[in-house]
Amino acid sequence: MNKYSDIIREVDILDEQHAQLLAELFSAFSDPSRLRIISALKDLEMNVGTISEITGLSESATSHQLRGLRQLRLVRTRKEGRQVFYSLDDEHVKVLYDLGLNHILHG
Amino acid sequence: MNKYSDIIREVDILDEQHAQLLAELFSAFSDPSRLRIISALKDLEMNVGTISEITGLSESATSHQLRGLRQLRLVRTRKEGRQVFYSLDDEHVKVLYDLGLNHILHG
Repeated sequence: MNKYSDIIREVDILDEQHAQLLAELFSAFSDPSRLRIISALKDLEMNVGTISEITGLSESATSHQLRGLRQLRLVRTRKEGRQVFYSLDDEHVKVLYDLGLNHILHG
Repeated sequence: MNKYSDIIREVDILDEQHAQLLAELFSAFSDPSRLRIISALKDLEMNVGTISEITGLSESATSHQLRGLRQLRLVRTRKEGRQVFYSLDDEHVKVLYDLGLNHILHG
């Protein structure tokens, strides 16, 4: 028992393993190019060519970022014949993006 | 006009300046120690000593992280005599943290 025991009991402190996973998630959002890709995919699914065109990134840079985003389960893919379409993986991604944007615009 | 014109008109793509600011915000959440501090401050305000004690970080590491969090407006301070208490700056911070945690636990 020490003088912080009461506080420690009250606080639901994040353990180190979950802190690491959560840091990786936020770090997936910490790159301007990735964020521009996420903004492009907010309401539409697109193939690499279209994403590259509207973000101004090269196709190879776009593919590279999409691979990272997919590994972290921020985007998912759908195949249609030989085409691959990308979209945001779930509602969390969109809400995290919107909340972050809201914070920098109005926070 | 090119073949993407219709899509480009529909998509509210993040400009580079805002993408940079948003990347900085998410990168403030991309450190396990910072996330553990945020988790400690979720429901209570605390001074540096208490945060240090319950996170297991040294006081100087805690102060360093708190300075960074404050610069990015994720935490704020309140003075009471010679004591300084830290708390989360606004509801956005808590909601971003909770949503991220929800994504890694259930996403």
